[in-house]
Amino acid sequence: MDPQWDLLPPPFRKLEPEAALLRFSLEMVESLAELVPAMKFQVAFYERFGSSGFRALEQAVRRARALQILVIIDCKRGDIGSTAQEYAHAYLDEEGPLACDAVTLNPYLGRDSLEPFLAFFPRGKGAFALVRTSNPSAPDLQDLDVSGHPLFETVGEKVKEWGSPFVGENGYSSLGAVVGATYPQEAERLRQVLPETFFLLPGYGAQGASEADIALAFDRKGEGVLVNSSRAILFAYRDPVYVDLPPQRYLEASQTAYKQATNRIRHAIDERMKNR
Amino acid sequence: MDPQWDLLPPPFRKLEPEAALLRFSLEMVESLAELVPAMKFQVAFYERFGSSGFRALEQAVRRARALQILVIIDCKRGDIGSTAQEYAHAYLDEEGPLACDAVTLNPYLGRDSLEPFLAFFPRGKGAFALVRTSNPSAPDLQDLDVSGHPLFETVGEKVKEWGSPFVGENGYSSLGAVVGATYPQEAERLRQVLPETFFLLPGYGAQGASEADIALAFDRKGEGVLVNSSRAILFAYRDPVYVDLPPQRYLEASQTAYKQATNRIRHAIDERMKNR
Repeated sequence: MDPQWDLLPPPFRKLEPEAALLRFSLEMVESLAELVPAMKFQVAFYERFGSSGFRALEQAVRRARALQILVIIDCKRGDIGSTAQEYAHAYLDEEGPLACDAVTLNPYLGRDSLEPFLAFFPRGKGAFALVRTSNPSAPDLQDLDVSGHPLFETVGEKVKEWGSPFVGENGYSSLGAVVGATYPQEAERLRQVLPETFFLLPGYGAQGASEADIALAFDRKGEGVLVNSSRAILFAYRDPVYVDLPPQRYLEASQTAYKQATNRIRHAIDERMKNR
Repeated sequence: MDPQWDLLPPPFRKLEPEAALLRFSLEMVESLAELVPAMKFQVAFYERFGSSGFRALEQAVRRARALQILVIIDCKRGDIGSTAQEYAHAYLDEEGPLACDAVTLNPYLGRDSLEPFLAFFPRGKGAFALVRTSNPSAPDLQDLDVSGHPLFETVGEKVKEWGSPFVGENGYSSLGAVVGATYPQEAERLRQVLPETFFLLPGYGAQGASEADIALAFDRKGEGVLVNSSRAILFAYRDPVYVDLPPQRYLEASQTAYKQATNRIRHAIDERMKNR
């Protein structure tokens, strides 16, 4: 859920921001509820409109959870312990205004910035720490050489260590890693270093990563990854591939794009498993 | 402005969160307006209450700016370019819901995550990138050895490089650095590496840094630092030092704490300048 204002179907852009964000978000949530296991809400697209954007986000998140969709809020927060406590309350406490299932976190401040979130893990919550991001400037800091290895590998190892007390029955920790699919070699390398860490994998679709790139990040069982596709699903109505669907059928375009992407990814994973 | 709920003067805690945050923030803004050059609002203490907290923040920020206080919003945001764009609009665009003068940013995603903010610098806006934070776990990543130097030094050098096109008449760039006063040796070292970068210096007061620690971060002219003190000013009414002021005179306690802190810091800077 990256409801970028200028990509919304035209009728929405005639509404007030809060109404537009809310209606578009609710329509997408309801339209995709039967298909998707989880939805990642990018808070920035709501925060852009301040308190009124947050009001829309609160309602959309509540609706998604009522429909049994796992909700990840992509906020990339990271702050000193006493402040991180406030963010953790907002997003992971069931009493908080944006109660969801998992958040994304920035690890630059170190372990104590994650601790208030870890405290909610025994209650079924989770988080994904940024390890290797999907953007072009990711190498600026993340590829710096730390004793012969790029920084992101060390960060990955720390995420594994911090998450080790929270490994569940299925073998994954409630502390996962954000690994950009746009850097397939790095993702493959991280999978070797972190064989049992759950990855949240952005970069598929609009950002350019292919199904074959994505397949490299899956673990030995062909699992352990939540692939994220935002704009390519949400704004499929703009894609010439779906030109047979008129723009007012944007929900169908999104459903179709979701199903096709899933089929392509499944096929790529099967191929990779065969070649192992 | 870190309006931590359980530290608010008791009468406020009987109100609804939005009313409490708004009233307390407005009272503090108005009471300190004649004294302070700038105010840093920590967004987490408002975000904790979701959209209603944001509504209080919006109003408090507007009031502070109307009173000619420079407003820094401490949001530590950091995201990929297209998303960072949304945050930059929210905080640095005068049309944005939380229009202010400067924000804090997390540099882990690299240069393109800062660019949408840099685009507002020619319009009088600024930002402080996290270089060395004030929390106990700061060394986890920030002290990792990058070619013989701690990571934070390399980050500091990058911040200097990214900010170099935005150096103004007074010799400082609009891109400053967050440097924790709780690590005085590291702050002194960063001042050597970054002789002309403006520092936002948290950690004074409640977090434990002394005036002598702080003085190490000032530049050759005894300038170039914005010292941040949050809880020690805001909640001075709880400090036994101000026991002569009854709790209902919390605003006076904060004014007194501010003036005394400023005098002590000035004295420490003078001492350091003398010994140079």
